[in-house]
This record gives sequence, structure tokens and C-alpha cells, in this order.
Amino acid sequence: MKALVLSSGGIDSTTCLALAVEHYGAGEVLALSVAYGQKHTKELQAAQAIAAYYGVKHRHLDLAELFRDSDCTLLQGGGDIPKESYADQLKETDGKPVSTYVPFRNGLFLSAAASIALSNGCEVIFYGAHSDDAAGNAYPDCSAEFNDAMQTAVWIGSGKQLRICAPFVDKTKADVVAVGLEKNAPYHLTWSCYEGGEKPCGVCGTCRDRAAAFAANGVKDPALEVNHEG
Amino acid sequence: MKALVLSSGGIDSTTCLALAVEHYGAGEVLALSVAYGQKHTKELQAAQAIAAYYGVKHRHLDLAELFRDSDCTLLQGGGDIPKESYADQLKETDGKPVSTYVPFRNGLFLSAAASIALSNGCEVIFYGAHSDDAAGNAYPDCSAEFNDAMQTAVWIGSGKQLRICAPFVDKTKADVVAVGLEKNAPYHLTWSCYEGGEKPCGVCGTCRDRAAAFAANGVKDPALEVNHEG
Repeated sequence: MKALVLSSGGIDSTTCLALAVEHYGAGEVLALSVAYGQKHTKELQAAQAIAAYYGVKHRHLDLAELFRDSDCTLLQGGGDIPKESYADQLKETDGKPVSTYVPFRNGLFLSAAASIALSNGCEVIFYGAHSDDAAGNAYPDCSAEFNDAMQTAVWIGSGKQLRICAPFVDKTKADVVAVGLEKNAPYHLTWSCYEGGEKPCGVCGTCRDRAAAFAANGVKDPALEVNHEG
Repeated sequence: MKALVLSSGGIDSTTCLALAVEHYGAGEVLALSVAYGQKHTKELQAAQAIAAYYGVKHRHLDLAELFRDSDCTLLQGGGDIPKESYADQLKETDGKPVSTYVPFRNGLFLSAAASIALSNGCEVIFYGAHSDDAAGNAYPDCSAEFNDAMQTAVWIGSGKQLRICAPFVDKTKADVVAVGLEKNAPYHLTWSCYEGGEKPCGVCGTCRDRAAAFAANGVKDPALEVNHEG
């Protein structure tokens, strides 16, 4: 294996997977998905379908135990998921992350990915952090500053055997969608909504961001077209 | 809770625990120990005994699944543990870590600790990395450069809510033992040997380092005195 891709089943990581498969070939790519107690376990089924679409090996990891004491609203047992945009939510957080921030999730996922990647001879980890999620400190573990530090930590801590590639860390979600449309990423298979219901709720932060990103590219969201019409 | 201490049951982390308990009080300290498929599970029993000695809450985490594909010699199913000093081992590794380096272990443990610490309101994570382990790239995830990067990653990635304290990152193991002796750390309860046999093997890298650190302080190793005499 050459590359490990953190694959959540959403737009950003699916676009990363498209890039990794294009560059390394499906046989050299390992997709890693993590259960962490999220309400929307539906994203894990999406990740599995996307890995099958590309014909890459898919590994599933359960780290829910680590978040059992968290009151994050994204998690089972947490409070209600906010129905406002991130910008509106941030007016109430006093500089802290939004309530759907999962404690150090990206750091944990990148570190778990590093241990697995090194154990399988991979030279690079891809993940889909982008600047919209980092804006206003909504998700500080999506910021370029965080990414720089983790890149150094993984490079040095691995004995210079493994690096992190975050191709969208300075780009918007609309930019990500533009890349994915060009690469024919299977967006019809993706899942983003935090609620994990039958259809996307349309009002959680990530539903709003997803809709705006497709709108900015002048296309309809293929997941809404294919899976949830009517 | 105020402080989380990564506690392996060895000398370095037990000295960290002594410092954290002195500073924050036992009621505000959470000790975290991790099973990762190590041969010397005996260290986990030591960690439990040390947490009980200090009267701190102790949490156990099993992350062995992450290392199932690793050929690290420290792990069950790995090859033989070298019987030479780290300095001698490094003559054969061509600049790579020693064979007992567990892939990105400290990054993973610090990240898992960060998720748990944030979920429990802690403001700081203590861990016992020291310069002897980092020397010559034996364990690159014990180096000051790695630690600096992880400190930044945790501080930024947590939204400036959590920091890492590595009090020995620029010190030798002999320095660590000097601190612990001054603080009356319960070294008689600790376990270091990688083999995890009835008695310490005396010839693995960590047995050698431990013996040298006590010798440098002019004292006998109390664990050898109390637990394993005869």
C-alpha cells in the first residue's frame, strides 16, 4: 500500500479518494473509516459504498469508547444538533468551537491513520480538511495551522517515513466540489447530514454548507437527485 | 478533572504522575493506560497499582487493533526483542527507528489522551518522553521536535483549551530518576522490561537504560530489591 485516505463518506474525503486513486491506482490505496459514536452512522455505509465504487481496500475502526464522556451534540447521547449555519452558531460560542466539534477528532484520526499507514508501508495519508470548516474557529482541527503542526508531528514522529497530504486545507468547500466534479467523484453515493435520518435534514451546518457548495458550482446535488427524490 | 497523565507503569510516566499529583491533587488527576498489543502487559498491572498508590482515577484503553499489521518486535507476534543497547541497535538501522519503535505510538496516545482530556474538562496532558529515548532517532516520537509539533497540534486543534506538558523532553532518564527519588515516586511498583517475564530480563534496551539511570543516581533499583530478589 502507498496511500491511506481518511474516508468519512462525505464530499471532502471522497474527493481526496478520487485524487489518491488517480495518483497511486486503486490497488495501492487503503480507505479508513472510523466509528466514533456519531449519530449519523449512515456516513459509514456511504464510505463503504464509495470504497467499493473505486475498488479500494476499506478498513473500519471503532473509536467510540474514547468519546464516551463527551457532551458533543454530534454524538449519540449528546444534545440537539443546531439548525443554524456555522456563522450563526459562532455568535454564541464565545470564541470556542461549535457544539458539533468532536474533541480533537481530526488529530486522533490522523494519528490512528499514521499507526495503520506505517504498519502497512504507506508513505502518505490524505484527509479532506478545508477552510470553510476552520473559519471562525468552528472546527479548529480543520485549520491550516493545525494541519501544519500535525504534518510535522507525523513526519518527525514517524522517523521521516510518512507525510500528510491535505489538498484542500486552503480551499473552500465549493473549490472541493469543483475538483470532485472534474474527477467524476461518486457524489451520488456520499452522505453528509449530521442527523443521519432517511433524507438529509437540509438545515444542519453541514447540509447548508453542502448545498451552498453545489450551488456555487451551478449543479444539483446528485445525492439528493438519486437517493432521496420524491 | 484538571490533568490527564499517560501512565505506562514505567519510570518516566510514574515520575510525571508524581509531579501532576503534587501540583493538582490526586482528585484532579486522571491516569490513562493503553493496551496496544505489547508483549509486556505486565506494565499495565504496574500502572494500575501506581494509580491506586496515588489514589487517582485510572482509565484503561485498548488500541491493539490499530497495530495488528505491524511487525514491531515489541508487539505480540513480532520478532525477538533485541538484547543490545539502543546505541548498538542503531548501528544496524540505517537511520530508521529501532525495531521496538511502535508506529506513531506517542502521537496516537497523545491524541487519544487529548480526546479523553477534553471530554473530561482537563486543561493539560502529562507524558514522560525524555531525550535518551530520542537519541539517534531510536524513538523519533520522543524527540523535542516531535513534542513541539504535537503541543501545537493539541493547542490549536483543541481551540486553545488543552496543552501538553512534557517535563523531561530535554532531560536524560538519569535526570528523571533524580526527580522521582526527590518526590518519593513509588518506583518499587514500576515495570519497564519489554519481555514481561517473571523478572526483568536485564538485557533489553529499556532494562539497560533503567539500570544505568539508577546507577547514575547511586541507588539500587527498588523494583529489583522488593519484587524480584532471590
